[in-house]
Amino acid sequence: METYQSAGVNILHAEKFVERLKRNSRRAGHQQLLQGAGGYACVYPVSEKQAVALTTDGIGTKLLVAIQLKKFNTIGIDLVAMCANDLICVGAKPTVFLDYFATGKLEDEVADDIIAGIVQGCDQAGMILAGGETAEMPGVYDDGHFDLAGFAMGTVESNELITGSTIKPGQLVIGIASSGIHSNGFSLARKVLANNPESWPELLTPTLIYVEPVNAILNQHPGVLSGLAHITGGGWRNLFRLHEGVGFHIDHPLPVPSIFEKIGQHVSKDELYKTFNMGMGLAVIVDGTYGQFVLDSFHRFGFAAQVVGQVTDISGVITISGSDVVLREG
Amino acid sequence: METYQSAGVNILHAEKFVERLKRNSRRAGHQQLLQGAGGYACVYPVSEKQAVALTTDGIGTKLLVAIQLKKFNTIGIDLVAMCANDLICVGAKPTVFLDYFATGKLEDEVADDIIAGIVQGCDQAGMILAGGETAEMPGVYDDGHFDLAGFAMGTVESNELITGSTIKPGQLVIGIASSGIHSNGFSLARKVLANNPESWPELLTPTLIYVEPVNAILNQHPGVLSGLAHITGGGWRNLFRLHEGVGFHIDHPLPVPSIFEKIGQHVSKDELYKTFNMGMGLAVIVDGTYGQFVLDSFHRFGFAAQVVGQVTDISGVITISGSDVVLREG
Repeated sequence: METYQSAGVNILHAEKFVERLKRNSRRAGHQQLLQGAGGYACVYPVSEKQAVALTTDGIGTKLLVAIQLKKFNTIGIDLVAMCANDLICVGAKPTVFLDYFATGKLEDEVADDIIAGIVQGCDQAGMILAGGETAEMPGVYDDGHFDLAGFAMGTVESNELITGSTIKPGQLVIGIASSGIHSNGFSLARKVLANNPESWPELLTPTLIYVEPVNAILNQHPGVLSGLAHITGGGWRNLFRLHEGVGFHIDHPLPVPSIFEKIGQHVSKDELYKTFNMGMGLAVIVDGTYGQFVLDSFHRFGFAAQVVGQVTDISGVITISGSDVVLREG
Repeated sequence: METYQSAGVNILHAEKFVERLKRNSRRAGHQQLLQGAGGYACVYPVSEKQAVALTTDGIGTKLLVAIQLKKFNTIGIDLVAMCANDLICVGAKPTVFLDYFATGKLEDEVADDIIAGIVQGCDQAGMILAGGETAEMPGVYDDGHFDLAGFAMGTVESNELITGSTIKPGQLVIGIASSGIHSNGFSLARKVLANNPESWPELLTPTLIYVEPVNAILNQHPGVLSGLAHITGGGWRNLFRLHEGVGFHIDHPLPVPSIFEKIGQHVSKDELYKTFNMGMGLAVIVDGTYGQFVLDSFHRFGFAAQVVGQVTDISGVITISGSDVVLREG
């Protein structure tokens, strides 16, 4: 059985590094950052009432699949999605996107396709593509290779920041369907599907962008969402980021996209849920009274969504009905 | 004679790509971006009076020199510098920094050294290191290779945005000394100095961060600076970005650091000024009446600065006394 680590990615190691980085991050004499649930974005107050949320992300080695298939017009959607979906998790409305595009040698057709995807992603997220950096770096990237990073800003009223503090046992977990693997776990997926080329196009399915329904919900009922977890690297363990002292029981999981069945032939079930979204690209925590409203909002924008479970008082544990998978924090 | 292009970097080609990108950047239904001089940062209004400036940049193949010399504790300063110096060019006060760090395999010692440099850079720039993305991407980066991108935000009162609109012939050009090559033109520099390893440590001298004196000037006399040009890729051609319809005559250039003499043995003088800062890391355009105040402010913070020339009415032309170099726009 393969694991994310055996595929070359040690996510706990990376998380420890990020912890060290965070210890460096608060410097004296600074406006205190605000804390949004899950740490999906940093939140900086620009006035008494208003804050901006900032985040940066990439698409990992999904871009190697794009290179392999010579299909570059959708990875820009993924890049925007990874950032925009992080911003909404703290309650921010995505507004501005910048890209960093570094390559061994700038090839117009590839670059134009990538930008076309970024523009499409920005349209879906309601963001303005305001600029970026394009770097030719021969010697860092082989010819035909490149990397992409996204940088996104959103705005949020300070008193509408989603902090996770209202999350409590008994609340609903609403799962919003993913379109497939999205943009995480690719080093593992690519390794186990290396000899299964007919599955590669499915790997490139663009990441869904959940901005429109979340904006609609927050415009109509600010404060109704107790937490949002964008299911990224670390899989369902992302739920642990939302609030301390609670757990989650998932009794009606969303259908699992076929790509995960293919991957699951080589990867343990535990590792699958710790690495991939397994059909749930976004999890929303909400009081039962607003459950139907939230479901309706996602459905109205064409997203499959259902109540998948509840918040429990079993701290740091996720259980999944009909499965022996138990995820633990840490 | 070598050129930036013969070293694998076609800067005009890259600029054309950025132009295409910009045509995509304004989407309907959006708050209009504000225009800061030189386009060094995008400026997004967050309220009637206030705006945030955003920029992204990398350090190009300077990181290959760091890898070659196994010295990683200063390139983080360069990364912050490249972003922070861009923000001040539109009059913004740098506040928040995020990094994107992608590597083949996360090596703690290397990563910690890089972060130490970023923290030091943030201290110099008065910024908070608020987060970032750390990505392990085996297959994109060889073992021991990595890339770094910086994302920075600053704040600016909308009516204090530096737009370049007050630039006019007769104004002073004040040059602020660089510490050397800073973080641009490395593909060319590395190529021509490939057989000159004793010069490599000099290449790693950290980029100067000009935030403190510029903040001090703007705090004391908002509106006094007509333009600031961070001299980055494209060398002195960066001056053309400030304002249309003017030119520049440089009659008292700053001393040229020795590294450029070494590079100049293989590169034409014209190409040197089109690629490197040639001793001037920042150019400030100011009315004569404020010249001494601006000089004093930079000197007070330990920066070498002098009046290097004047704005002229010869549109799109830079002339340099005692040299046959004439730079033309486009």
